[in-house]
Amino acid sequence: MTLSPTLLESLRATFAPDALSTGEAERIAYSYDNSRLHALPDAVVFPAEHAQVEALVRACRAHKVPVIARGRGSNTTGASVPVEGGVVVSFERMNRILRIDPDNRLAVVEPGVLNGDLQQALAPHGFFWPPDPTSAPWCSVGGNLACNAAGPRAVKYGSPRENTLGLRAVAGSGEGFRCGTYTSKGATGYDLTRLLIGSEGTLALITEATLKLTPKPSSVRTLRATYRDVGAAARAVARIMAQPVTPCALEFIDDVALKLAHAHGGDSVPLAGAMLMIEVDGEPATLDSAVAAVAAAARGDGLDELRVAQSAEETGALWAARRALSPAQRTISPNKINEDVVVPVSHLPALVDGIKQLSARHDVLIVTFGHAGNGNLHVNLLPRDEVERERAHACLADVFALVISLEGTLSGEHGIGMIKREFMPLALEASTLGLMRSVKTAFDPDGILNPGKLLP
Amino acid sequence: MTLSPTLLESLRATFAPDALSTGEAERIAYSYDNSRLHALPDAVVFPAEHAQVEALVRACRAHKVPVIARGRGSNTTGASVPVEGGVVVSFERMNRILRIDPDNRLAVVEPGVLNGDLQQALAPHGFFWPPDPTSAPWCSVGGNLACNAAGPRAVKYGSPRENTLGLRAVAGSGEGFRCGTYTSKGATGYDLTRLLIGSEGTLALITEATLKLTPKPSSVRTLRATYRDVGAAARAVARIMAQPVTPCALEFIDDVALKLAHAHGGDSVPLAGAMLMIEVDGEPATLDSAVAAVAAAARGDGLDELRVAQSAEETGALWAARRALSPAQRTISPNKINEDVVVPVSHLPALVDGIKQLSARHDVLIVTFGHAGNGNLHVNLLPRDEVERERAHACLADVFALVISLEGTLSGEHGIGMIKREFMPLALEASTLGLMRSVKTAFDPDGILNPGKLLP
Repeated sequence: MTLSPTLLESLRATFAPDALSTGEAERIAYSYDNSRLHALPDAVVFPAEHAQVEALVRACRAHKVPVIARGRGSNTTGASVPVEGGVVVSFERMNRILRIDPDNRLAVVEPGVLNGDLQQALAPHGFFWPPDPTSAPWCSVGGNLACNAAGPRAVKYGSPRENTLGLRAVAGSGEGFRCGTYTSKGATGYDLTRLLIGSEGTLALITEATLKLTPKPSSVRTLRATYRDVGAAARAVARIMAQPVTPCALEFIDDVALKLAHAHGGDSVPLAGAMLMIEVDGEPATLDSAVAAVAAAARGDGLDELRVAQSAEETGALWAARRALSPAQRTISPNKINEDVVVPVSHLPALVDGIKQLSARHDVLIVTFGHAGNGNLHVNLLPRDEVERERAHACLADVFALVISLEGTLSGEHGIGMIKREFMPLALEASTLGLMRSVKTAFDPDGILNPGKLLP
Repeated sequence: MTLSPTLLESLRATFAPDALSTGEAERIAYSYDNSRLHALPDAVVFPAEHAQVEALVRACRAHKVPVIARGRGSNTTGASVPVEGGVVVSFERMNRILRIDPDNRLAVVEPGVLNGDLQQALAPHGFFWPPDPTSAPWCSVGGNLACNAAGPRAVKYGSPRENTLGLRAVAGSGEGFRCGTYTSKGATGYDLTRLLIGSEGTLALITEATLKLTPKPSSVRTLRATYRDVGAAARAVARIMAQPVTPCALEFIDDVALKLAHAHGGDSVPLAGAMLMIEVDGEPATLDSAVAAVAAAARGDGLDELRVAQSAEETGALWAARRALSPAQRTISPNKINEDVVVPVSHLPALVDGIKQLSARHDVLIVTFGHAGNGNLHVNLLPRDEVERERAHACLADVFALVISLEGTLSGEHGIGMIKREFMPLALEASTLGLMRSVKTAFDPDGILNPGKLLP
């Protein structure tokens, strides 16, 4: 499909020549995301303001042409791949921090602001915005909101749904609207803010966000605990989360992932049956008792060694290794299947044991690590060739069935995109999916926003 | 209107004789709520299980008869008054705590469980559920969810939207569904859970809730600070919230309210220009530094006295007086107009000053107190007769205009109900209201759920 001359004319009336591209080079550059799936859009636009997004959606709606919002394409589910063509809307030029308001613990930003740039701007004020995906330096806040993307700190500070006060957006109808508040509390009508967060650009395009800020704790301490095997580490996670001191990070890394991280991070990363990285934060006077409480829970059958990181360098090396895990797996399998299932924390031991069994039964290498404090594990299947890839797909269905049987769900922070759509009926009742489809129609009557995503 | 014989027959097939009433006495008993507005329903039913609610909504939908969910009627906005008749669904018999799961920090409850009963059941496990309306001993969790009702602790721990993982419900279509998760994180489709919370029974009837629990801090300390006038106290609130230690309660009480509280609570309640009650909680080792940080912020121009409550009795008396404020106002005005506006915290000084001016200009007594840490003030207009009542209504419109001009919104925790519907266009754009109406239609195509509420 190519865009009709009348639609192109509308687009040219809205966007300057350097903000609208139909050339093949740009279309290819915006055809894929970190899922490595790809499909060519018919055009790419770079809005600089809300009004342009309204005009764009209206024009595309009149021609029934798909509109695909895009942050920086760091998502892993194909959520920003234009599978049915249409116009990709890259928000990279709407990247202004409009207001930092420490007195009211809020910031107002455009969607293209990078997560890492925002954190740097907030730091001098003593605040941070909790969502911290591994891709923070190069992913956008708008993308974080679209996917409800989180990261290690969510265990204590929550995901974007818990850290956003209000939004400005353009619905699939072409209408601009504001929802939410500038206040930390509100009961004025339906919560459209949280409805948009995690909707992956299928309901509306976010053009402005009012974010809830959190005071930055002045101190942090990092512990590492190594265990005989994954089951012992998973049981320790459940014990840590059952006591009152909530860590600000509680990361699990299995034996296979440790080998990868060791290769990348060097000797500061131990080789063991499994490792937990545990961080506690707060005021300096509170940390000794917090470390003691968490350490007591971390001890138990199967613990090999528990130690507090001795220096900023050691802490830095542990985190660098943890952050390198996702890209490092590409060295084994360019076609890794990257999942982020989540179960209630007490079911983590059953999940990690079950995954080891599925890995053996299907003869597929699986690396497991992630945000164990939320029960949120990255279960990465690493097929090395086409034959293994078929086995991996069969294995994946079993992984999801295991997760659902343990009261879990398909995604903790990556979202559904293209890749998990077909599994949605495993996680949600038909009536729930039906309501989600009705909500979609309410916002996007002609189904032009990011077609082929999220809903099966 | 009376119910048709065929609908009555359907209801009798679903509900035993002691769970269905069409007698006048019960209909009157369920005709009003704490707003003191009233309208007779045609019948009252007392479901014991989800399936009965599904059958009820289907039957009523077939006859286009209104269905009004009811917790314990403690709301102040008329949200549970059956203004168009129909069937009131009282959830008082669905009051079981189905599961307390400290390992996963969650509880599963039926909607009729009283907030206070839940807290008592959780205490031995070392957990609590943060929402704590003044009516906690006699209000239901279902009602708390329907109204997004909060209370003093929300300043640190959030409202129901931040403390609920998942729901089971019946939409206005008659379809039962589950939404949300049993996990502390999720990105599997649209967030219908938060959409239902605060929707005041206009989208669906909640039949089960999975609540997120928080570890109960082992220690708490209460401070009281008195100020020369309301402006000085409001400026102190803004200072307290701009520093990193977040209190677990930060209540503001103005001079008029202090007189009322003094009359009720005795000498432990001071008479002053304004008072703040400040609580900090945490592990014992952390409290000295927390109190010091908060106290430093509370000091400033206009402070009369700052002291830490010296005993459990003194703390108890302060809270008893605070809790008695709402009922005590009835002694002045049986027709009090009870608002709960909210503004960004730094705008509190402008809000309280503006309200004093409006009180003088319209010659209406106004009592102001509430959850200042969230910028959420109960602005209660106390007309003593019909003439004053008319002046109060004119004043109220000016109060809302003031709030909106200060980036605030109509309600922090009471919701909209009947009383604030007409003011919704002040707070929300026409496009936002239009989307809310479309969402309503998606859940409740025939508009039978709680008609005449929330949306103008």
